[in-house]
Amino acid sequence: MPSYHPPIQDVQFLLHDVLKISEHDIPGYDDLSQSFTEAILTEAGKLGSEVLNPLNASGDREGCTLLDGHVTTPVGFKEAFAQLRLGGWTGLDMPVEYGGQGLPCIVHTAVGEIFSASNQAFSMYHALTHGAASAILTHGTQKQKETYLPQMITCEWTGTMNLTEPQCGTDLGLIRTKAEPESDDYYRITGQKIFISAGEHDLADNIIHLVLARIVDAPKGIKGISLFIVPKFLVNEDGSLGRRNSVQCSKIEDKMGIHGNATCVMNYDGAVGYLVGKPNQGMRAMFTMMNEARLGVGLQGLAQADVAYQNALEYAKERLQGRDVMGTKSSEDSADPLIVHPDIRRSLMDQKSFTEGARALVLWSAMLIDRGHRKDDQPTIQLISLLTPVIKGFLTDQGYEMTIQAQQIYGGHGYIEEYGMSQFTRDARIAMIYEGANGIQALDLVGRKLLEEGFETIERFIRSVSKYIIRHRNGSEFTQHFFDVLQSSTTHLQLAVNELKEKSQANPNFALAGSYDFMHLLGHICLGYMWTKIALVAKEKRDSTQIDHRFLNAKINTALYYMERRLPATEMHLRRIKSGDKRITALDPRDF
Amino acid sequence: MPSYHPPIQDVQFLLHDVLKISEHDIPGYDDLSQSFTEAILTEAGKLGSEVLNPLNASGDREGCTLLDGHVTTPVGFKEAFAQLRLGGWTGLDMPVEYGGQGLPCIVHTAVGEIFSASNQAFSMYHALTHGAASAILTHGTQKQKETYLPQMITCEWTGTMNLTEPQCGTDLGLIRTKAEPESDDYYRITGQKIFISAGEHDLADNIIHLVLARIVDAPKGIKGISLFIVPKFLVNEDGSLGRRNSVQCSKIEDKMGIHGNATCVMNYDGAVGYLVGKPNQGMRAMFTMMNEARLGVGLQGLAQADVAYQNALEYAKERLQGRDVMGTKSSEDSADPLIVHPDIRRSLMDQKSFTEGARALVLWSAMLIDRGHRKDDQPTIQLISLLTPVIKGFLTDQGYEMTIQAQQIYGGHGYIEEYGMSQFTRDARIAMIYEGANGIQALDLVGRKLLEEGFETIERFIRSVSKYIIRHRNGSEFTQHFFDVLQSSTTHLQLAVNELKEKSQANPNFALAGSYDFMHLLGHICLGYMWTKIALVAKEKRDSTQIDHRFLNAKINTALYYMERRLPATEMHLRRIKSGDKRITALDPRDF
Repeated sequence: MPSYHPPIQDVQFLLHDVLKISEHDIPGYDDLSQSFTEAILTEAGKLGSEVLNPLNASGDREGCTLLDGHVTTPVGFKEAFAQLRLGGWTGLDMPVEYGGQGLPCIVHTAVGEIFSASNQAFSMYHALTHGAASAILTHGTQKQKETYLPQMITCEWTGTMNLTEPQCGTDLGLIRTKAEPESDDYYRITGQKIFISAGEHDLADNIIHLVLARIVDAPKGIKGISLFIVPKFLVNEDGSLGRRNSVQCSKIEDKMGIHGNATCVMNYDGAVGYLVGKPNQGMRAMFTMMNEARLGVGLQGLAQADVAYQNALEYAKERLQGRDVMGTKSSEDSADPLIVHPDIRRSLMDQKSFTEGARALVLWSAMLIDRGHRKDDQPTIQLISLLTPVIKGFLTDQGYEMTIQAQQIYGGHGYIEEYGMSQFTRDARIAMIYEGANGIQALDLVGRKLLEEGFETIERFIRSVSKYIIRHRNGSEFTQHFFDVLQSSTTHLQLAVNELKEKSQANPNFALAGSYDFMHLLGHICLGYMWTKIALVAKEKRDSTQIDHRFLNAKINTALYYMERRLPATEMHLRRIKSGDKRITALDPRDF
Repeated sequence: MPSYHPPIQDVQFLLHDVLKISEHDIPGYDDLSQSFTEAILTEAGKLGSEVLNPLNASGDREGCTLLDGHVTTPVGFKEAFAQLRLGGWTGLDMPVEYGGQGLPCIVHTAVGEIFSASNQAFSMYHALTHGAASAILTHGTQKQKETYLPQMITCEWTGTMNLTEPQCGTDLGLIRTKAEPESDDYYRITGQKIFISAGEHDLADNIIHLVLARIVDAPKGIKGISLFIVPKFLVNEDGSLGRRNSVQCSKIEDKMGIHGNATCVMNYDGAVGYLVGKPNQGMRAMFTMMNEARLGVGLQGLAQADVAYQNALEYAKERLQGRDVMGTKSSEDSADPLIVHPDIRRSLMDQKSFTEGARALVLWSAMLIDRGHRKDDQPTIQLISLLTPVIKGFLTDQGYEMTIQAQQIYGGHGYIEEYGMSQFTRDARIAMIYEGANGIQALDLVGRKLLEEGFETIERFIRSVSKYIIRHRNGSEFTQHFFDVLQSSTTHLQLAVNELKEKSQANPNFALAGSYDFMHLLGHICLGYMWTKIALVAKEKRDSTQIDHRFLNAKINTALYYMERRLPATEMHLRRIKSGDKRITALDPRDF
């Protein structure tokens, strides 16, 4: 059975040494002392590794079952969910006035990785609730907030996002679910939604569905979409549960992975729904949920890669197979451990340099969110908006690739279900698809964030990396190692931006044909930037203290690995972007 | 349900226009006229698409079941297997004297792709039999050949390869299964083998296990391994089946994919086994099977990618979602088909350029095998020996990546089992693992084929590509497009070879740290070389005939896509190789 060890030392190092959170003047960061974050991470780590992780494999095997409209989650999920709720873990960064703890997003993010790595399918039940609560918090009326938030923040009630219909996934303008006004107070919602994660289950007393629907006579397409709260049980004036609403789960999907989470077909048959925000402005509200969800999904990419890596590493240390080509390592054993072999190490270093770099990126991004929202800092909000599709798309693509590499280290034992490595890859696969398939992330990045909104934010980002290089370049061989590569990759990014600027006005397809490569190019630079920061901090700390040298040296070596082995991908992505759309658009569909 | 269309036009084009098989002076190639190969491919295609493919999804759902030592295969497998046998498909390239058809390997390969794409799990039953029969053919006594081959070639009896044990996968020197001589005639085999594909099933009257074991008092390690025939039922002198041998299937594995094929734990309890070849020379004999199997597995990588691509393409044409950014394509519909979107096309072109290029590579390789073996042409045999790990490792890695891309085009529908795309990825995943995990292929390529055997063959290959460029470069813009890229990638390969030559004598880890990248670098060049050949032929044919212009233009465009978008990966691989082993070997295992 796979095990999981929460990366407490690494997160502490990132928070306090690399990001130096106490030095930022962000409201709420004063409270985040070393000992405070360590205590939180330790407790979350216990819950994750001791309670949630043991249910991961069994949850996968058992899956969810639907009988007469009721969904039963795997054995143990109910008790674990209660434990999570009672520990106050579901509202860490939610407002105190509604029962949350008011902590910054960065704490919620660090803890989120641990829960997701421990049990992705399980964590989706509360993660989606968090997203739904955020949407109500931002767009709901005072009464809606008071009615739903306290219970959602404690996960007594859970939440869902209802977007997809059989005929519409990405293109929400095609939504057919209709909303008919019944009184000043509510609408009647009718239609079918599919792929609704946690749409029905036995973990909570009520389920608050957030549903996109079209009010009768609304404008066609995306501009006629509104958002509704559709509770499974209506809520009485006094807050108690009232009658069952006419929403039913008619099917749960048989999926490749995340079996512990019920993916439901939901039928709305004149269900009572309450409008959230203004009519026809549902997409705006839904984007609050989606942006949050996209960061959370990027985190899943990292989380599955990390737990898979941890287990592959253990296996590589224990499994005896073959001899070290440089000379036998364990002469008393029949063979040397896998980890002596260079290609096994190459794979482990790929994984390690990805997960630790990605962790730095998501924590830095969470800090940007805190700074942006808590200080109403618009340039920072624009930067995180630019980075959101990269975090979702790049981290889930690369995260998946790394779970595959981790599985590969097990050889045939990775392919059979017994060892749990197959589950990591099957679970990780969904993260590239849901909350906007990764191609849509690339489209969002290049089509919306660059072409539509202009290149200002990306160029500010490039300047800030360049400034960082200039500020820290001191001629030493050590910094040279990093800055040569980072500078040349940043130049690739700038050249790619120039290409898009030049050619895409006349021909938007040029930019879109390179969008996927642009997302990966930018992703690699983000990780290269993080690794450079980490290495400089690690060196400084190593040179000035006596502690943790092994940890710090490993950081520096892993940073160098990323710069030398992974970052060179930027040049390939630039070449692909430059090759444009000519070969891509040439063929008539019949000639494929 | 996914469908499958055999690539008959493409194979015909490759065989007769690109490879020009009738112009090669290879024994047996005289008979391979256009109409002959078309007839064979058409019949194989019917069997594949109409009989085997419909059993693919149901076989995945049902899987195999073990009861009292008997394994039941999925419904319909038995009848389909009988149909395959009676059609003579199992012995296409086997000697006529033992009931085969004596056709060249290239025909067997072209047909093999079709069967594998139609149903990978099913095809393994006869593919492994073919491998076992080849080993007996090459290393068995006359009596062994007469006793087993006729029934194995018709698949009345099937065959298996028994290598892996719980404590040994890659490192066969660790084998513990023992063989005790009982008479001049036979040994008693005792031990446990795991991961035995088709180890037990209900498709054949007898199963002929080829088992690696250690004769008592044999030398330690790999030099003490012998190969044995261990039939499930002993064979009487008259060829009839005798008593049950003491070999049992005690478990079938729960796997990520290929559910239709029984992966067995096999227990040998003093089973009667007949030595194949000389004592302690089992590895030699096993390599006959493994080399053949490795090419077959490379073919699986291509085959799964192709069938996944075919279905993704259909979905992209039919699924309406979003609007073409360059202007609405289907104004009467609610949205345009997915295929209008540049990033969807980018993905489809990745897939198309891989599968068609890979098909050219495997057919060219099969021709090399025919030339090598039928003309006893040693340099050609060395070349195919060099390319074998590339075909296995590169084609299964890339093939898997392409099935993932195909699945991605389906969005959420790709993740649920209903549409069959998940199965393609789950089935394709094993090809990177079995018959030597891909890291082992890289080790075989760099460690054995380059460092041990010398660089002569790879340098001859590089010279032949360079000569091809010189011969065909004619200053036209068209050839320039191809030769610039191919030349520069070939230079990357030469530089990589130089690096390995220079640095690996003093430090073998340098080469091994770059082995995986070297395998991919060489793989990309093989495909770039194939695409250049294809494009030149397609252009010549287009300029000289009136037929098939759409097909030929698509070939040229796809070739250009590969050269511009995929081949630039070689530079990245070169940089990684050059970065060496320093960061890879630096960390103490405790510091990972």
